Amino acid sequence: MDTYTTTIAVASIVTSGITISIGVIGPALSEGRSVATALSSLAQQPDASTTITRTLFVGLAMIESLAIYCFVVSMILIFANPFWNHAIA
Amino acid sequence: MDTYTTTIAVASIVTSGITISIGVIGPALSEGRSVATALSSLAQQPDASTTITRTLFVGLAMIESLAIYCFVVSMILIFANPFWNHAIA
Amino acid sequence: MDTYTTTIAVASIVTSGITISIGVIGPALSEGRSVATALSSLAQQPDASTTITRTLFVGLAMIESLAIYCFVVSMILIFANPFWNHAIA
Amino acid sequence: MDTYTTTIAVASIVTSGITISIGVIGPALSEGRSVATALSSLAQQPDASTTITRTLFVGLAMIESLAIYCFVVSMILIFANPFWNHAIA
Amino acid sequence: MDTYTTTIAVASIVTSGITISIGVIGPALSEGRSVATALSSLAQQPDASTTITRTLFVGLAMIESLAIYCFVVSMILIFANPFWNHAIA
Amino acid sequence: MDTYTTTIAVASIVTSGITISIGVIGPALSEGRSVATALSSLAQQPDASTTITRTLFVGLAMIESLAIYCFVVSMILIFANPFWNHAIA
Amino acid sequence: MDTYTTTIAVASIVTSGITISIGVIGPALSEGRSVATALSSLAQQPDASTTITRTLFVGLAMIESLAIYCFVVSMILIFANPFWNHAIA
Amino acid sequence: MDTYTTTIAVASIVTSGITISIGVIGPALSEGRSVATALSSLAQQPDASTTITRTLFVGLAMIESLAIYCFVVSMILIFANPFWNHAIA
Amino acid sequence: MDTYTTTIAVASIVTSGITISIGVIGPALSEGRSVATALSSLAQQPDASTTITRTLFVGLAMIESLAIYCFVVSMILIFANPFWNHAIA
Amino acid sequence: MDTYTTTIAVASIVTSGITISIGVIGPALSEGRSVATALSSLAQQPDASTTITRTLFVGLAMIESLAIYCFVVSMILIFANPFWNHAIA
Amino acid sequence: MDTYTTTIAVASIVTSGITISIGVIGPALSEGRSVATALSSLAQQPDASTTITRTLFVGLAMIESLAIYCFVVSMILIFANPFWNHAIA
Amino acid sequence: MDTYTTTIAVASIVTSGITISIGVIGPALSEGRSVATALSSLAQQPDASTTITRTLFVGLAMIESLAIYCFVVSMILIFANPFWNHAIA
Amino acid sequence: MDTYTTTIAVASIVTSGITISIGVIGPALSEGRSVATALSSLAQQPDASTTITRTLFVGLAMIESLAIYCFVVSMILIFANPFWNHAIA
Amino acid sequence: MDTYTTTIAVASIVTSGITISIGVIGPALSEGRSVATALSSLAQQPDASTTITRTLFVGLAMIESLAIYCFVVSMILIFANPFWNHAIA
Repeated sequence: MDTYTTTIAVASIVTSGITISIGVIGPALSEGRSVATALSSLAQQPDASTTITRTLFVGLAMIESLAIYCFVVSMILIFANPFWNHAIA
Repeated sequence: MDTYTTTIAVASIVTSGITISIGVIGPALSEGRSVATALSSLAQQPDASTTITRTLFVGLAMIESLAIYCFVVSMILIFANPFWNHAIA
Repeated sequence: MDTYTTTIAVASIVTSGITISIGVIGPALSEGRSVATALSSLAQQPDASTTITRTLFVGLAMIESLAIYCFVVSMILIFANPFWNHAIA
Repeated sequence: MDTYTTTIAVASIVTSGITISIGVIGPALSEGRSVATALSSLAQQPDASTTITRTLFVGLAMIESLAIYCFVVSMILIFANPFWNHAIA
Repeated sequence: MDTYTTTIAVASIVTSGITISIGVIGPALSEGRSVATALSSLAQQPDASTTITRTLFVGLAMIESLAIYCFVVSMILIFANPFWNHAIA
Repeated sequence: MDTYTTTIAVASIVTSGITISIGVIGPALSEGRSVATALSSLAQQPDASTTITRTLFVGLAMIESLAIYCFVVSMILIFANPFWNHAIA
Repeated sequence: MDTYTTTIAVASIVTSGITISIGVIGPALSEGRSVATALSSLAQQPDASTTITRTLFVGLAMIESLAIYCFVVSMILIFANPFWNHAIA
Repeated sequence: MDTYTTTIAVASIVTSGITISIGVIGPALSEGRSVATALSSLAQQPDASTTITRTLFVGLAMIESLAIYCFVVSMILIFANPFWNHAIA
Repeated sequence: MDTYTTTIAVASIVTSGITISIGVIGPALSEGRSVATALSSLAQQPDASTTITRTLFVGLAMIESLAIYCFVVSMILIFANPFWNHAIA
Repeated sequence: MDTYTTTIAVASIVTSGITISIGVIGPALSEGRSVATALSSLAQQPDASTTITRTLFVGLAMIESLAIYCFVVSMILIFANPFWNHAIA
Repeated sequence: MDTYTTTIAVASIVTSGITISIGVIGPALSEGRSVATALSSLAQQPDASTTITRTLFVGLAMIESLAIYCFVVSMILIFANPFWNHAIA
Repeated sequence: MDTYTTTIAVASIVTSGITISIGVIGPALSEGRSVATALSSLAQQPDASTTITRTLFVGLAMIESLAIYCFVVSMILIFANPFWNHAIA
Repeated sequence: MDTYTTTIAVASIVTSGITISIGVIGPALSEGRSVATALSSLAQQPDASTTITRTLFVGLAMIESLAIYCFVVSMILIFANPFWNHAIA
Repeated sequence: MDTYTTTIAVASIVTSGITISIGVIGPALSEGRSVATALSSLAQQPDASTTITRTLFVGLAMIESLAIYCFVVSMILIFANPFWNHAIA
C-alpha cells in the first residue's frame, strides 16, 4: 500500500456508504407514502382493490429503481472500481 | 499513480456518489407524491382509471428523466471521464 | 498533468456533479406537484381532461427547461469547458 | 497557466455551477405551484379557462425571468468573464 | 496579474453568483404564491378579473424590484466594480 | 494595492452582495404574502376594493422600506465606504 | 493603514452588513403577516376598518422599531464606530 | 493599538451586531403574531375592542422587553464595555 | 493586558452576547403565542376576561423568568465574572 | 494565570452561556404551549377553571424543573466549578 | 495542572453543559405537549378528570426520566468523572 | 497520563454525553405524542380506558427501550470502556 | 498503546455512540406515531381492538428491528471490532 | 499496523456506523407511517382487514429492503472489506 492507493480506498469506502445511506431516504419516504395512501384508499373504496394494488406495485417498482441506482453505484465503488483497479495494477 | 491522477480519481469517486444520492431525493419524493395521489384519485373516481393511469405514467416518465440525468453524469464520471482519460494518457 | 490543470479538472468534476444533483431538486418537486394536482383534478372533473392535460404538458415543459439549464451547464463543464481547453492548450 | 489564472478559472467554474443550480430552486417551486393551482382552478371553473391560462402564462414568464437572470450570470462567468479575459490578456 | 487583483477578482466572481442565486429565491417564491392565489381567485370570482389582474401586476412589479436590486449589485460587481477598477489602475 | 486595501476591498465586495441577497428574502416573502391575501380578499369581498388596495399599498411601502435599508447599506459599502476611503487616502 | 486598523475595518464592514440583513428577516415576516391579516379582516368585516387600520399602524410601528434597532447598530458601526475612532486616533 | 486591544475590539463589534440581529428575530415574529391575532379578533368581535387593545399593548410591552435586553447588551458592548475600558486603560 | 486576560475577555464578550440573543428566542415565541391565544380567547368568550387575563399574566411571568435566567448569566459574564476577576487580580 | 487555567476558564464561560441559552428553548416553547392551551380551554369551558388552573401549574412546575437543571449546571460551572478549583489550587 | 488533565477537564466541562442543554429539549417539548393535551381534554370532558390527571402524571414521570438520564450523565462528568479521577491520581 | 490515554478519555467523555443527549430526543418526542394521544382518546372515549391505558404502557415500554440502548452505550463508555481498560493496562 | 491503536479506538468509540444515538431517532418517532394512531383508533373503534393490537405489535417489531441493526453495529464496534483485534494482535 | 492500514480501518469503522444509522431514518419513518395508516384504516373499515394486512406486509417488505441495502453495505465494510483485505495482505 502507498499513499495513492490508500487515498482512493478511503474515498471509495466513504462514498459507497454515504451514497446508499443518503440515497435510500427519498425512496423510503416515497414508498411509505405510497403504501400509506394505498391502505387508506383500500379502506375507503374496497371494490377498487385490484386497480389500486396494481398501480401501487408499478409505482413501487419505479421508486425502488431510484434506490437501485444508488445501490449499483455503491457496489461499483466497492467491487468494480475502475480507479482502484488502475491504482493497484 | 501520482498525485495528479489520484486527486482526479478521488474527486470522480466522491462526486459520482454524491451526484446520484442527492439527485434521487427530489425525483423519489415526486414519484411518491404522484403515485399516492393517483391511488387516492382511483379510490375516489374509479371510472376515470384509464385517464388517471395514462397521465400518471407520462408524469413518472418526466420525473424519472431528471434522475436519469444525474445517473448519466455519475456514470460518465466513473466510466467515461475525459479528465481521467487525459490524466492517464 | 500539472497542478494547474489538475485543479481545474477537479473543480470541473465536482461542480458538474453538484450542479445537476442540486439543480433537479426543485424541478422534480414541482413536476411531482403538477402531476399530482393534475391527477386529482382529473378525478374531480373528468370532463375537462383535454384542457387539464394540455396545461399540464405546457407546465411540465416550462419546469423541465429549468433542469435543462443545469444539465447544459453540467455538460459544458465536462465536455466543452473553455477553461480546461485553455489549460491543456 | 499560472496560479492567478488557475484561481480565477476555478472560481468561475464553481460559481457558474452553483449559481444556476441554486438559482432554479425558487423559480422551479414557484412554477410548480402556479401550474398546480391553474390545474385545480381549471377543474373547479372550466368556463374561466381563457382568463386562467392567460394569467398563468404571464406569471410563468415573470418567474422564468428570475431563472434567466441566474442563467445569464452563469453564462457570463463561463464565456464572457471580464476577469478571465483580463487575466489571460 | 498579481495576488491582490486575483483576490479581488475571485471575490467579485463568487459574490456576483451567490448574490443573484440567493437573491431570486425569495422573489420567486413570492411571485409563485401571488400568481397561484390570483389563479384560484379568478376561478372563484371571475367577475372581479379586472381588479385582480391589476393588483397582481402591481404586486409582481413590487416583488420583481427586489430581485432587480440583487441583479444590479451582481452586474455592478462584474462590469462596474470600483474596487477592481482601482486595482487594475 | 497592498494587503490592507485588498482585504478591505474583498470584505466590502462580499458583504455588499450577501447583505442585499439575504436582506430581500424576508421582504420578498412578506410582499408575496400580502399580495396573495389581497387577491383572495378582493375575490371574497369585491366591494371593499378601495380600502383593501389602499391598505395593501401602505403595507407594501412599509415592507419595501426594510429591503431599502439593506440596499442602502450595500450601496454604501460599494460606493461610499468610509473605511475604503481611509485606506486609499 | 496597519494590521490593527485593517482588522477592525473588516470586522465593522462585515458585521454592519450581516446585522441589517439578518435583522430585517423577522420584522419583514411579521409586517407581512400583520398586513395580510389586516387585509383579510377588512374583507371579512369592512365596518371595523377604522379600528383595524389604527391597530395595524400601531403594530407596524412596534415591529418597525425592531428593524430600526438593527439599522442603528449597523450605521453606528459604519459611521460612528468608537473602536475605529480609537484605532485611527 | 496592539494585538490585545484589537482582538477585544473585533469581538465587541461582531458580538454587538450578532446579538441585536439574532435577538430581534423572536420578538419580531411574536409581535407580528400578536398583532395579526388582534386584527382578526377585532374583525370577529368588534365590541370587545377595548379589552383586546389593552391586552395587546401589555403583551407587546412584555415581548418588546426581550428585544430591549438584547439592545442593552449590544449598546453596553459598544459604548460601555468594561473589558475594552480595562484594555485601553 | 496579556494573552490570558485577552482570551478570557473575548470569551466573555462573545458568550454574553450569544447567551442573551439565543436565550430570548424561545421565551419570545412563547409569549407571542400566549398573547395571541389570549386575544382570540377574549374575542371568543369576552365574559371570561378576568380569568383569562389573570392566567395570561401568571404564564407570562413564568416564561419571562426563563429569559431572565439568560439575562442574569449574560450580566454576570460582563460585570461580575469570577474568572475575569481572578485574571486581573 | 497560565495556559491551563485560561483554557479551563474559557471553556467554563462559553459552556455556561451556551447551556442556559439552549436549555431554555425547549421549556420556553412548552410553557408557551401550555399557557396558550390553558387560555383557550378557559374560553371554551369557563366552569372547569379550577381543574384547568391547577393542572396548568403542576405542568409548568414540571417543565420549569428542566430549565432549572440547565441553570444549575450553568451556575456550577461559574461559581462552583471543581475543575477550576483544582486548577487554581 | 498539565496538558493532559487540562484537556480532560475542558472536555468534561463542555460535554456536561451540552448534554443537559440538548437533553432537555425533547422532554421539554413532550411535557408541554402532554400538559397542553391534558388541559384541552379536561375542557372537553371534565368528568374524566381523574383518569386524565392520573395518566398525565404517569406520562410526565416517564418523560422526565429521559431528562434525568442526561442530568445524571452531566453530574457524573462534573463530580464523579472516572477519567478525571484517574488523571489527577 | 500520556497522549494516548488522554485522547481515549476525551473521546469517551464527549461521546457518552452526545450519545445520551441526542438519543433521548426521539424517544422523548414519541412518548409525548403517545401520552398526548392517550389523553385525548380518554377524553373522547372514557369507556375504553382499560384498553387505552394498557396499550399506552406497552408502547411506552417499547419506546423507552430505545432510550435505554443509548443510556447503556453511554454508561459502557464511562464505566466499562474496553478501549480505556486496554489503554491503562 | 501507540498512535495507530489509539486512532482506531477513538474512531470506534465515537462511531459506536453516534450510530446508536442517531439510529434510534427514526424508529423512536415511528413507534410513537404507531402507538399514537393505535390509541386513537382504539378510542374510535373499540370493537376492533384485537386486530388493531395485533397489527400494532407486528409493526412495532418491524420498526424495532431497524434500531436493533444500529445497536448491533454499535456493540460490534465496541466488543467485537475486527479492526481493533487486528491492531492489538 | 502502519498509517495506511490504520487510515482504511478508521474510514471503514466510521462509514459503517454512519451508513446504518442514517440509512434507517427513511425506512423507519416510512414503516411508522404505513403501520399508522393501516391502524386507522382498520378502525375505519374493519371488514377489509384481510386486504389491508396483506398490502401492509408487502409494503413493509419493500421498505425494509431499503434498510437491508444499508445494513449489507455496513456489514461488508466491517467483515468483508476488499480494501482492508488488500491492505493487510
